[in-house]
Amino acid sequence: MAWIHLVGLLALVQYLMFGALVGKARGQYGVQAPATTGNEVFERYYRVQMNTLELMVVLLPAMWIAAAYWDPRWAALAGVVYLVGRMVYLRAYTRDPGSRAMGFMLSVTPIAVLIVAGMLGAALRILGGAAP
Amino acid sequence: MAWIHLVGLLALVQYLMFGALVGKARGQYGVQAPATTGNEVFERYYRVQMNTLELMVVLLPAMWIAAAYWDPRWAALAGVVYLVGRMVYLRAYTRDPGSRAMGFMLSVTPIAVLIVAGMLGAALRILGGAAP
Amino acid sequence: MAWIHLVGLLALVQYLMFGALVGKARGQYGVQAPATTGNEVFERYYRVQMNTLELMVVLLPAMWIAAAYWDPRWAALAGVVYLVGRMVYLRAYTRDPGSRAMGFMLSVTPIAVLIVAGMLGAALRILGGAAP
Repeated sequence: MAWIHLVGLLALVQYLMFGALVGKARGQYGVQAPATTGNEVFERYYRVQMNTLELMVVLLPAMWIAAAYWDPRWAALAGVVYLVGRMVYLRAYTRDPGSRAMGFMLSVTPIAVLIVAGMLGAALRILGGAAP
Repeated sequence: MAWIHLVGLLALVQYLMFGALVGKARGQYGVQAPATTGNEVFERYYRVQMNTLELMVVLLPAMWIAAAYWDPRWAALAGVVYLVGRMVYLRAYTRDPGSRAMGFMLSVTPIAVLIVAGMLGAALRILGGAAP
Repeated sequence: MAWIHLVGLLALVQYLMFGALVGKARGQYGVQAPATTGNEVFERYYRVQMNTLELMVVLLPAMWIAAAYWDPRWAALAGVVYLVGRMVYLRAYTRDPGSRAMGFMLSVTPIAVLIVAGMLGAALRILGGAAP
């Protein structure tokens, strides 16, 4: 499970870095807390962080569950694709929100693969009559 | 644990579907990213997704911890009640935000049960002198 | 793992309580759902809940992973520091958003320690040639 742990922790660090970029954008574009609107560029950084939060909370359990049934190194590899997708998403969204689709797909696809793999594994285990 | 995994993955899929509804509402009601306000119906879908995120991040760890001390099938059943509650919440909130209380309670109650069960299990384990 | 479970559940309960404060502030300051803006004090409670969500989803996996390599009681202790930091953050932010830095640092530092500890543990395991 060490590879899963390492990739999972990298996802946490990446997410915290996106949060730090939001904090930096607050100062740079003069958006005082608790406001989260008022400057278009700040809002882009804020939406990147929120969207990453929304996907990370799906990635981590999906990666853990998939790794319970299949080779954890494959699950970790899917996590790496997600990490790359998030970097692409950050760069695209902050330049032009309209171009965010590719980075989004690159993050969502490995998550979908992990969910399907986990469901298949759990279903086979249940149908196989093993102690659930 | 296979039942926990299956219900956990269903919660992830349900949440991703709520996210897809937000994306669809963006197009339908003309709310351009990064904005999250400007149309009342869009905001309802957005709040359903956010509220589901807020509860799902509690449900998953609570279900896992409770399953470490009690029959995982009971914990998975609590998760199913949560899933139904979220469907009720979606339908009620998007029709009329004022009617969202029942779906909310139906999602929060199993979470509360899981938390209490987990705390009881962990406390008994610690008091029982077992290696923590 | 019982200590990790107990502290993890306390983090969930604390977060749900912050959510209840947002619900209460909705009534008190007349912010009707789905709006999340319109009253400065309400927005502070809302931002406290959101910021706690943002950190809690990092704390929990980091605590679990660190506990897989080091004494779980140390990981649980880091979780307790986070819990105290969140209380400080709530009190400071709702009084004056400008004074939120100390509570924030007090919550982020144990998370950073857990992430570094987890990375170190996982890296040593991989380098040590143990089955990942």
